Amino acid sequence: MPPDAARRSDRSRLAVLTAALELVEELGYAKLTVEAVAARAGVGKQTIYRWWPTKGTLLFDAFVELRAAGRDVRPRGELGDDLKLELREAIAELVERRFDQVCRMLVHEARTDLVTLLLTPRRVVLEQRLAEAGRAGEIRSDVDVPTAAELLLGPVYQRWLLRTGPLTGAFSDTVVDLTLRALRA
Amino acid sequence: MPPDAARRSDRSRLAVLTAALELVEELGYAKLTVEAVAARAGVGKQTIYRWWPTKGTLLFDAFVELRAAGRDVRPRGELGDDLKLELREAIAELVERRFDQVCRMLVHEARTDLVTLLLTPRRVVLEQRLAEAGRAGEIRSDVDVPTAAELLLGPVYQRWLLRTGPLTGAFSDTVVDLTLRALRA
Repeated sequence: MPPDAARRSDRSRLAVLTAALELVEELGYAKLTVEAVAARAGVGKQTIYRWWPTKGTLLFDAFVELRAAGRDVRPRGELGDDLKLELREAIAELVERRFDQVCRMLVHEARTDLVTLLLTPRRVVLEQRLAEAGRAGEIRSDVDVPTAAELLLGPVYQRWLLRTGPLTGAFSDTVVDLTLRALRA
Repeated sequence: MPPDAARRSDRSRLAVLTAALELVEELGYAKLTVEAVAARAGVGKQTIYRWWPTKGTLLFDAFVELRAAGRDVRPRGELGDDLKLELREAIAELVERRFDQVCRMLVHEARTDLVTLLLTPRRVVLEQRLAEAGRAGEIRSDVDVPTAAELLLGPVYQRWLLRTGPLTGAFSDTVVDLTLRALRA
């Protein structure tokens, strides 16, 4: 593709992904149509279908690409504060309408592999912070970091998915406080 | 209904529920048909449809009724051993084909309220054991029991549902060991 055509193609792609996320937030997954995304992005329907066979794949790409762009590395603070902030952000994301719609759609379509992929960035951040804490002696050196991360995230994801209780910052703070007692020397 | 008819009706109901569980174990949810359940139970298809509108509702009732019957109250042992045994049993149940099929079917049909109901008996047992441990001074008295139960079950259910890692007894033992460090005085 000549450089100008490649640039136009990148611009169209970004316009489509942005429109998809805006519309799933406004309409929810069930009412979202490829026609509406095409109209808002100013491209033809066929352009969308050429890149994405279904609205599910389109939304998944939109979510992964546009979300990753906004993620900054945060300066480190006290371990407990850092973990609480991470879990509160995880909850804020889970209850955000567009994320909730995309994730539940994937669960209902039995694409739990993709749900796991969507959730992986948070898990990686938590594991990095915990590994750092291990090196700094803030937690015991024999703690299994992946299991510790699941102790933090498991209760939160379970409440979100199965709606077993209110998904609040107070709940996740308690999970952090309990887990830190388990991890500290 | 005269007593004889009521007994016949109870017998038919039990035969249908038993056949449904056997067949979902043998065939999986997708291949299970109401015709096959009727044939094995020795009742007419209409008898099944009169009581259960869909195979999903039939399987759910089968699971709840026949499972509850087999649950015994266990003598208490050391707290850590009891919790490890409970989680290992939870895992054995989750990976059992008929339970796995019924639960994933419910998740895919967005009936997570029913999944929660299916999982509730285990949660209740864990909460009772933890409350007892609180009264006996085995764990701190200020521990929030429902949150502690989610710390134990959340990581297990998350691994089961999202397949984020191998669902083994070694994993759940680690979860118990870590959680107990959090709960003990």
